[in-house]
Amino acid sequence: MTMSRIPMLDDRSLLSAAERLRPDLAPEYVLIRAAWSVLVEPGDGIAGALIAEHGAQDALRTALGEPGLLAPGRIGAREIADAQSRWQPRARPQAVHDALDSAFHVGARLLLPGDDDWPAGLEDLGAHAPIALWMRGDATRMRGQETVAIVGARAATSYGESVAGELAGDLAATDAVVISGGAYGIDGAAHRAALGVGGTTIAFLAGGVDRAYPIGHQQLFDRIRDGGAVLSEVPCGAAPTKWRFLQRNRLIAATGMATVVVEAGWRSGSLNTAGHAAALGRPIGAVPGPVTSAASAGCHRLLREYDAVCVTSAQEVRELWGSVIEAPPTAIPPDPDRTRLLDALSSRTARPPEDLARRSGLATDRVRALLGILELEGAVRRGESGWTQTSR
Amino acid sequence: MTMSRIPMLDDRSLLSAAERLRPDLAPEYVLIRAAWSVLVEPGDGIAGALIAEHGAQDALRTALGEPGLLAPGRIGAREIADAQSRWQPRARPQAVHDALDSAFHVGARLLLPGDDDWPAGLEDLGAHAPIALWMRGDATRMRGQETVAIVGARAATSYGESVAGELAGDLAATDAVVISGGAYGIDGAAHRAALGVGGTTIAFLAGGVDRAYPIGHQQLFDRIRDGGAVLSEVPCGAAPTKWRFLQRNRLIAATGMATVVVEAGWRSGSLNTAGHAAALGRPIGAVPGPVTSAASAGCHRLLREYDAVCVTSAQEVRELWGSVIEAPPTAIPPDPDRTRLLDALSSRTARPPEDLARRSGLATDRVRALLGILELEGAVRRGESGWTQTSR
Repeated sequence: MTMSRIPMLDDRSLLSAAERLRPDLAPEYVLIRAAWSVLVEPGDGIAGALIAEHGAQDALRTALGEPGLLAPGRIGAREIADAQSRWQPRARPQAVHDALDSAFHVGARLLLPGDDDWPAGLEDLGAHAPIALWMRGDATRMRGQETVAIVGARAATSYGESVAGELAGDLAATDAVVISGGAYGIDGAAHRAALGVGGTTIAFLAGGVDRAYPIGHQQLFDRIRDGGAVLSEVPCGAAPTKWRFLQRNRLIAATGMATVVVEAGWRSGSLNTAGHAAALGRPIGAVPGPVTSAASAGCHRLLREYDAVCVTSAQEVRELWGSVIEAPPTAIPPDPDRTRLLDALSSRTARPPEDLARRSGLATDRVRALLGILELEGAVRRGESGWTQTSR
Repeated sequence: MTMSRIPMLDDRSLLSAAERLRPDLAPEYVLIRAAWSVLVEPGDGIAGALIAEHGAQDALRTALGEPGLLAPGRIGAREIADAQSRWQPRARPQAVHDALDSAFHVGARLLLPGDDDWPAGLEDLGAHAPIALWMRGDATRMRGQETVAIVGARAATSYGESVAGELAGDLAATDAVVISGGAYGIDGAAHRAALGVGGTTIAFLAGGVDRAYPIGHQQLFDRIRDGGAVLSEVPCGAAPTKWRFLQRNRLIAATGMATVVVEAGWRSGSLNTAGHAAALGRPIGAVPGPVTSAASAGCHRLLREYDAVCVTSAQEVRELWGSVIEAPPTAIPPDPDRTRLLDALSSRTARPPEDLARRSGLATDRVRALLGILELEGAVRRGESGWTQTSR
């Protein structure tokens, strides 16, 4: 692969660090994706769109400030300028070198789209798909297998952990890959049960794969590397931030053929994962529990507001993706009310539901219900004085 | 009201028994409806259709064997002959007299369609609406009120009884009428909680209103008479049979603006009530519980197979009928698969699901799922060697 020079990456030690990590690929190619992984926060749709339109190399040169390179495309000059201002402060060759070097030292691999072990399903994220993934373990075990995301509250009850274990163990024993987020509570119970039956399990982390977060799961992550893989789109050393947790959830939702929430509080992060799954047209299962248990409130909310399927057994979970195999996946039909509400929202001015109802011509109750759904998807934010649309 | 004589009812003591029970109406009119109540089993659609088409009087004369009275109508001669053969063995003046007399002695009233206290909603049953109701208590307290059916398993858990009590108490305290079936378990908890807050509650019984069934609820029925009414469409003295329980369920579903199932086993009779509610286009709520509890399995089945709404609080129950008030009730859309399956079923020959799948051109899994729904509605029956369509 011949590539024109990118000044920042034109460095012998960088090239050799790239070559050491992926000797099977042209080091310039590896470097460009590694650099993108360092520059952007997960889920940066402008980066994804630029790369899709102009290729990773020209997009990166533009990201780094080289003018006049791109023919006018779908992404406007103003959006590019905005993005440059957030990318360029991170454009340090040393950061790219550190990412490659530390990955090598912990035995991590840099996965790139098109690799045999690039997880299926991520392509459905479109411009929001990851540019690269850092991996410890062996993701080839996912290939051609059924996959199910099993997620839930950190503050789980023994009921929830027991049900998560039952489901994950049964599914993993019949060769489904159990995907989760490595957290305490439901996630941990799901990973452990899959490992317990000799099955495959995948953990997507919000921070670097060299950091055990939570630290109490260090041993669990070691075991997951042996029975599957630990994956992250941020480089080694990167801290798990709130934003990265939310974006990490989209990877879990996209790689699972279905997402099952076992226990979740009313505003649990697991609902965000379910929201991503819904946005991708993936089936969502929710495990019910006692109405008196706060740890099941989020699951009941999914049943009520999200049309999640009530699942009570591994067989019922299999039916979730069974329905996908039998029929073409049904994307959520476009909801005109939703479009009207989004039109009524501003990304700058917070508006109360009553105001939004007036602007959209929808009933206030309907506005409130839709806001709840959009909030789960991360499309709107609730503030003191009302709701704003988040920029995507 | 002048009526031509019906020989069986042309008896002074019968007329005076009718007059004593309903001095406000023409005794002949009362007698005709009382006689129908004695002749037919609940939910007899031929009786209902005959009465709707030809009036209760001419229909009764035909029922009793008077030939050539009716102009040809929608009900064929063969169906009428079949019905006559089941009605006429019961056509004893003494049975009608006993019904009137025993009602008088226990202070029961004979409610007739058009009465001020005839419960709203029953008209939606069409030809399957009751011809008359026997009542102890005061059903006028239902008039103009919101109504909710709260039903569930006799073999309830303390969780279920506690949730039923919470819901019923909260709803009754805000003037909703709580309708149930007077059984042990969930029904009893719902009635008791409504009475406990000084609210109105209605019990529909499968046997006569003079019989406490179950006997252990004798005192509860006494209290319900003071705080609402106990109703039945079979006369005093009639035993509660399996059929009458199933038909009684349709009265609960029809008089409730929504039906909420709190706990139910996998094949609980409460699912039959929910099935009637669905057939009537009434919203169904199901209270979730632990997936490890057999007493919640029927509720989860309603969520999965019936599109029931997950309800966890009295407010969420109110939203069930709120949606009915805001928008016209949405009847269940006709499902072409359902029609194809019904076409493939026979009322005489039992057929296994595989055979039905072949005949209907549907997938076997789809056939099984639909059979489950049709069974809840009472449209099909499961036997040793397969499924038959029940005659309606």
